Amino acid sequence: MNAYQSLLDHLQSLDLSRRSPDFLLTWEKTEAELQAVLTVARILRNLHKEGRSTRFFDTGLAVSIFRDQSTRTRFSFASAANALGLTVADLDEEKSQIAHGETVRETANMISFLTEAIGIRDDKFLGAGHTGMVEVAEAVQTGFEEGTLHQRPTLVNLQCDLDHPTQSLSDLSMLVDTFGSLENLKGKKLAMTWAYSPSYGKPLSVPQGVIGLMTRFGMEVTLAYPEGYDLVPEIMDRAQTQARESGGTFTVTHDMDAAFQEADVVYPKSWAPFTIMQERTRLLRAGDTRGLDALETQALAQNAEHQDWECTEEKMALTHNGKALYMHCLPADISGVSCKQGEVAATVFDRYRKATYQQASYKPFIIAAMIVLGRFPDPVAKITDVVGRSQLRY
Amino acid sequence: MNAYQSLLDHLQSLDLSRRSPDFLLTWEKTEAELQAVLTVARILRNLHKEGRSTRFFDTGLAVSIFRDQSTRTRFSFASAANALGLTVADLDEEKSQIAHGETVRETANMISFLTEAIGIRDDKFLGAGHTGMVEVAEAVQTGFEEGTLHQRPTLVNLQCDLDHPTQSLSDLSMLVDTFGSLENLKGKKLAMTWAYSPSYGKPLSVPQGVIGLMTRFGMEVTLAYPEGYDLVPEIMDRAQTQARESGGTFTVTHDMDAAFQEADVVYPKSWAPFTIMQERTRLLRAGDTRGLDALETQALAQNAEHQDWECTEEKMALTHNGKALYMHCLPADISGVSCKQGEVAATVFDRYRKATYQQASYKPFIIAAMIVLGRFPDPVAKITDVVGRSQLRY
Amino acid sequence: MNAYQSLLDHLQSLDLSRRSPDFLLTWEKTEAELQAVLTVARILRNLHKEGRSTRFFDTGLAVSIFRDQSTRTRFSFASAANALGLTVADLDEEKSQIAHGETVRETANMISFLTEAIGIRDDKFLGAGHTGMVEVAEAVQTGFEEGTLHQRPTLVNLQCDLDHPTQSLSDLSMLVDTFGSLENLKGKKLAMTWAYSPSYGKPLSVPQGVIGLMTRFGMEVTLAYPEGYDLVPEIMDRAQTQARESGGTFTVTHDMDAAFQEADVVYPKSWAPFTIMQERTRLLRAGDTRGLDALETQALAQNAEHQDWECTEEKMALTHNGKALYMHCLPADISGVSCKQGEVAATVFDRYRKATYQQASYKPFIIAAMIVLGRFPDPVAKITDVVGRSQLRY
Repeated sequence: MNAYQSLLDHLQSLDLSRRSPDFLLTWEKTEAELQAVLTVARILRNLHKEGRSTRFFDTGLAVSIFRDQSTRTRFSFASAANALGLTVADLDEEKSQIAHGETVRETANMISFLTEAIGIRDDKFLGAGHTGMVEVAEAVQTGFEEGTLHQRPTLVNLQCDLDHPTQSLSDLSMLVDTFGSLENLKGKKLAMTWAYSPSYGKPLSVPQGVIGLMTRFGMEVTLAYPEGYDLVPEIMDRAQTQARESGGTFTVTHDMDAAFQEADVVYPKSWAPFTIMQERTRLLRAGDTRGLDALETQALAQNAEHQDWECTEEKMALTHNGKALYMHCLPADISGVSCKQGEVAATVFDRYRKATYQQASYKPFIIAAMIVLGRFPDPVAKITDVVGRSQLRY
Repeated sequence: MNAYQSLLDHLQSLDLSRRSPDFLLTWEKTEAELQAVLTVARILRNLHKEGRSTRFFDTGLAVSIFRDQSTRTRFSFASAANALGLTVADLDEEKSQIAHGETVRETANMISFLTEAIGIRDDKFLGAGHTGMVEVAEAVQTGFEEGTLHQRPTLVNLQCDLDHPTQSLSDLSMLVDTFGSLENLKGKKLAMTWAYSPSYGKPLSVPQGVIGLMTRFGMEVTLAYPEGYDLVPEIMDRAQTQARESGGTFTVTHDMDAAFQEADVVYPKSWAPFTIMQERTRLLRAGDTRGLDALETQALAQNAEHQDWECTEEKMALTHNGKALYMHCLPADISGVSCKQGEVAATVFDRYRKATYQQASYKPFIIAAMIVLGRFPDPVAKITDVVGRSQLRY
Repeated sequence: MNAYQSLLDHLQSLDLSRRSPDFLLTWEKTEAELQAVLTVARILRNLHKEGRSTRFFDTGLAVSIFRDQSTRTRFSFASAANALGLTVADLDEEKSQIAHGETVRETANMISFLTEAIGIRDDKFLGAGHTGMVEVAEAVQTGFEEGTLHQRPTLVNLQCDLDHPTQSLSDLSMLVDTFGSLENLKGKKLAMTWAYSPSYGKPLSVPQGVIGLMTRFGMEVTLAYPEGYDLVPEIMDRAQTQARESGGTFTVTHDMDAAFQEADVVYPKSWAPFTIMQERTRLLRAGDTRGLDALETQALAQNAEHQDWECTEEKMALTHNGKALYMHCLPADISGVSCKQGEVAATVFDRYRKATYQQASYKPFIIAAMIVLGRFPDPVAKITDVVGRSQLRY
């Protein structure tokens, strides 16, 4: 109980008075709100590890809306919902179209009469994912204010075109556990680098989420990618500003080795260039299949020029004491294992496999924490209740 | 608690002694049974609004069987099941065929060993939907009597070819809340009218459900449609008889303006002509794709002759004080919003948007009420328990 | 309570000290472990019949992985999970590929952070189903040992290429209830026979499961099939050895009448020859569509030569007093009902319909028992708790 008490005391000390019920972008959140997510996630994870119940709801729905395929995030959301006592109801895009405007407003309300949380993954269309989530949030807010809904469901961004907050906060949890505290991250060198993949069209939300979050804690963040593989400019600007404000640095380079030099953490991961994603969005909207095929061919050829952007043993040797933490959001393209040539050498991945699994293991608790903080006006009181109940999970 | 007590007293006063465990057609139910559904739904809705638990079951499955796409009804059923403590298991028609005869009997039993409720939506084939539900009901009844099943699951019709009772009873709840009481509906004018839609093949169950239910409460119900858009004749006859018995009226007209004159309630909604649905059923069974295409072309051309059947501001001005309640089961075809020209003008819909959302909001509680009344021999005792428990939902 | 006490006493008397957390193949389990499954299933079934709660978990996921279509097994798993308080999360193979090697290891861990049980059905590829399950079991075992997973999920084989333990143990439950006790099965004649079906490619796991299990209890098991319809040789050898050890017999014949002679139990059921399944697996892996079509044509022609392998009234008359128990895992191919000519005559099936439904009704409780025995180190203590709680299900 003492361990829980100090976490609860920390939570109590944070100013959460102006927080929104939704979690859409980390950079819209105060540092207190981010710390609250980390802290609540830690409490829930500890309870789970001890075999204790983390049930906050007697009944209630958690609606999931996935605009593309997903195993990890889908199960993370299902796990988070289940841990809190909620039941997932999928709004299947194939079965039932959710569009924009009146249709979004209506559908958002129709699925929310008994809904406590809504998780949305919508990263396919650059410029549309986050916008769509804001539309849903406004729709349920109005529905709640007008009395259509008895409760205001909390929205959780399970990946959009701009950010992937449940991933980046899981990553941050991993860093905190690796280096001992948030405070200890100051001055640590993190290399978020592009890596070669034989596939194409990987979203930008992971690198954007990482540079958009880690620059807030005084880290020395380097973003490395081959020329042409830019991220959304506004987010690169934001990373720059945040680094300055937090006493860290944000450097962009087109040299993978330079990024790995003396790095404490490396995060080599493929993504598609911002401009390709823009063009792809235009073609997808236009339904231009031929154009999409041509774009894919062009993009793969462009990728193939950068096969040396691989996280090899040689590259790892450049890092701090040759022992940087290797991170990946999974699944990784492992050379000789999941593809002929990919993002990471098999021996490197193998050495860090357990670490990448641990990195992923935070996500269900991060999502659950976002729901708890979004739904409960006084989260400290509610969590104190749940912890005090000492109910076993089985 | 007093509010609940008067609802429970009313429930206690109703003669429910001969009720069936299933809810398939409103016109097979006594008025006491219908009042019981409204009353139990109101109790559950109030509990939910107060953040209190409506859990009736510790565990148990609620099986949903949908023979066509659905978002609203699917989520209403999922919400109802969840509110009662049941977990939805979908019998996916694409994954696992449910047919007729021996297969229905067997499947119905195989999915019911731990099942407390079964919700079925089957409105595609005229003449088959209701018949199929009766087959399932008989199968689980026999299974229960023979000891194959430890409990008799309750069947709820989530829309068939004849009726849509969860919709029409939600509509009735809306009317009761709008006009103050069931008693107050006497003499109120309701216009159930056809409206133009650019799509085709919309089911008959909503207008049939409305005229089959509202004629029982002394309302002056007018059914308006262009010549040729008849409903199933037996249900029109039934509406006539019921209106006579309840002291109301049932009038058929082919003039939309006449129906709107002095109406207190208007329900403009597209449907396909009965004869078209019969022909479509024949062609679907025969797998006659070419015939189906030809029928669609013909039906759309027929629809297009009646584009003036739109709920415009001009038409609304004809109603009682120009302020009739506009109703729709959603989604509506809104002119200039969801289609070029449709069932209702955008300004009319916009004024009543909140009302249509409220109308929809009753459905989860109506479904839950049907399950409670179907499954519990002494619903008053069970509900008294749940209300008295005063368990919060979170 | 006395009835439960004697079952609990029996359970207590069984040596379960070396059991694995998973249930993959009956022949890897000791007789004590098999008796434990039967006993726990009986306790759960009795509790359910009395309307009492069988909830063992407050929250938790039960992941289901189905590599082919299934209604019965899917609902049995969903029912078992629900009865224990777990929520099913489907790993949909179409939505998210689960492959072998690194991918299996990773996916198995990614879906298991809050997972208590995993049910897998994988019977399509001969030589791959069981192997794949072992891979998943090893992956979660390692994940648990390394601390990635806070708990070790229990694996349940819901049908593989070798065995169908949830089916064969349901069958055994039926036999115990029919003949009074496990002991009473000694010397009873069971005919597991091939039967004609107009379809092709039915898995071998049911007959293999039956001969692999029933030969352990002193039964006189006859396996009958037309020449060429062999099962996996190792399992036929195993049945031979087990029969010798248990004081029973295991006889192979190619004469259906001989198998039915004086049989106490008959289990006529179609399957594809072992060699055809091997060839089909090869062609499926090679993606050889033309080869698969040719194989199907050949196999159906081969089947058609044995249309006399039907469980007719004449054949039933050969059995002990003409009253052998007819068993089937369902759905059966019923002549003149579900197909023109099939495995069983309509009048025979009709007489045993209720019995086949009862046979199926054990499965949810068998699966739940496997989960309980796999997950709880001291199942007697845990079950005593649940029984003693005397919580009603509603």
